[in-house]
Amino acid sequence: MANPILVEVTRGPLVESVHRGAIAIADASGALRFALGDVETPTYPRSSLKPVQALPLVESGAADAFGLSDEEIALACASHSGEPMHATRVAAWLARIGCSERDLACGAHPPRDEPTWEAMIRAGAAPTRLHNNCSGKHAGFLTLARHWNIATGGYERIDHPVQQAVASALSELSGAHDLSWGVDGCAAPNFALALSAFARALAKFADPSALASPRKESASRIVRAMIAHPELVSGTGRACAILMRACDGVAVKTGAEGFYAAIIPRLGLGIALKIDDGAGRAAETAIAALLDNLGFWATTKTPAQSFARLLPTHAAQSSLIALIGQRCGPAGL
Amino acid sequence: MANPILVEVTRGPLVESVHRGAIAIADASGALRFALGDVETPTYPRSSLKPVQALPLVESGAADAFGLSDEEIALACASHSGEPMHATRVAAWLARIGCSERDLACGAHPPRDEPTWEAMIRAGAAPTRLHNNCSGKHAGFLTLARHWNIATGGYERIDHPVQQAVASALSELSGAHDLSWGVDGCAAPNFALALSAFARALAKFADPSALASPRKESASRIVRAMIAHPELVSGTGRACAILMRACDGVAVKTGAEGFYAAIIPRLGLGIALKIDDGAGRAAETAIAALLDNLGFWATTKTPAQSFARLLPTHAAQSSLIALIGQRCGPAGL
Repeated sequence: MANPILVEVTRGPLVESVHRGAIAIADASGALRFALGDVETPTYPRSSLKPVQALPLVESGAADAFGLSDEEIALACASHSGEPMHATRVAAWLARIGCSERDLACGAHPPRDEPTWEAMIRAGAAPTRLHNNCSGKHAGFLTLARHWNIATGGYERIDHPVQQAVASALSELSGAHDLSWGVDGCAAPNFALALSAFARALAKFADPSALASPRKESASRIVRAMIAHPELVSGTGRACAILMRACDGVAVKTGAEGFYAAIIPRLGLGIALKIDDGAGRAAETAIAALLDNLGFWATTKTPAQSFARLLPTHAAQSSLIALIGQRCGPAGL
Repeated sequence: MANPILVEVTRGPLVESVHRGAIAIADASGALRFALGDVETPTYPRSSLKPVQALPLVESGAADAFGLSDEEIALACASHSGEPMHATRVAAWLARIGCSERDLACGAHPPRDEPTWEAMIRAGAAPTRLHNNCSGKHAGFLTLARHWNIATGGYERIDHPVQQAVASALSELSGAHDLSWGVDGCAAPNFALALSAFARALAKFADPSALASPRKESASRIVRAMIAHPELVSGTGRACAILMRACDGVAVKTGAEGFYAAIIPRLGLGIALKIDDGAGRAAETAIAALLDNLGFWATTKTPAQSFARLLPTHAAQSSLIALIGQRCGPAGL
């Protein structure tokens, strides 16, 4: 059966395009508190996996051994826009662990931030691997390999201990085992699991009280670092930054192909959503509407009339109407 | 009921994203020769409408009165990439009818062609309305207003005779009346109609023999001009250009929000397809697979093993698998 329509795109008097998808909301006990659509078929969280990919870095003691700041933890969880604030911090971090841009297995791509890219074009500068939106995640992988005193070359391979540590952490938090995996755009493995299982893992970040130490403290630290540095996790004007600034105490993380994750400590909830067709515009609209529906706009200083105001790019481009408010009342939670 | 899945995006062992949509193929008698999904709900062809929007320009005699070349007719049908070959031709055309860039109602946006835009950034040049992908269509509207000796100001309004002529031509060719309309991204009206009806209109471009003169000759000229100048209709490396060069004698035209149109004179067929979620990658994959399925790859010099080779951007980005070949055999036509 097809997943329900979550977002409509209108033009004139008509609905021009529609986005289907599925949503899972879980708590730290593992209970599925809300489900819409197919939440049991495995799918890739893509970059929404990054808080989990950063967990071995912190719980292993590597982050403390190398004196990582919360800014650097936030960058380990980032899909950043390649602005100077991102690239310079990753470069300094790599130097501190005795590595350099050349050790990054991710390729170079132009910064997502247009003013940054235009300034580089004017200066005749080529993009480097530091501008790759995943360079902070890869710096985290390298830091863990350094801490364990194992080979850094090949750290992005599925059988490298760093990637196996990520797989173990994800399995333990989510309850999903024998994970399928694919190669992400940055060359690192990405693990597939059901939305319901991933929401359970995210809920344990929201409420780590039942986890053993040092995982408990590590999960809390990652969430605090993300919330403290919204622009380092994403970039200037990006949806993740706008949403984290609008919703006090909520960590959100976008993923390619229409994925979005949210960690809500105040409610002890994890949210995982995936748009069937992979559209980022729909995932951003859906997570914004969902947070609105959970009452977060009303608790912030942002005018609450419309989440479209928070995502002006989309509001200008077309009229995106999220249907979530009509289908999923807060009473369900 | 949900439309069928037309295109899958895979990663590793899994299908990561899916694109649903609908396809209508008609002949010039008005017979619907193939239909997949909902082909009766009105939707906007967006820029796939441009051959119809160019028809009043030609059949009114305006094109001949101003000595328009086939290159200019192709530009009137274009969603171009704003390369110098496009912008300079539109500028010269506007000058010939006593107009200039300032008369264009479309706004300025950066050229879609990245090398062109990067060269402009290095030169400190700002985008102009000539770079708008619709500037040729708008030059055509202005030419018709000049020919009729009526006000050019406001030519983009729904009640201007130029837009009313477009609506009439579309109704007459498609059989659809009382058309809903919305404002397109370029400020001009775009008219909504069923895929089945739009496929009938496109089929009359493919086989105009039953049309009265001068519409008959005008429709043929537009198709010839498009086929003769694939890069002027689109741009360097664009899907429309690649497909027209690969499929001898076929005119194709992309439209925003996942629309694609094809005009096939050899078979006397018109094709209209729309991806539900508006994804261009899926529309390009679906039309390529459809033309493959109709036997067009085999008639060209392009190696026929895979349409993905023709659309290297998508093949590199992810594995896009069109399901059309499994669902729609040529026997159905």
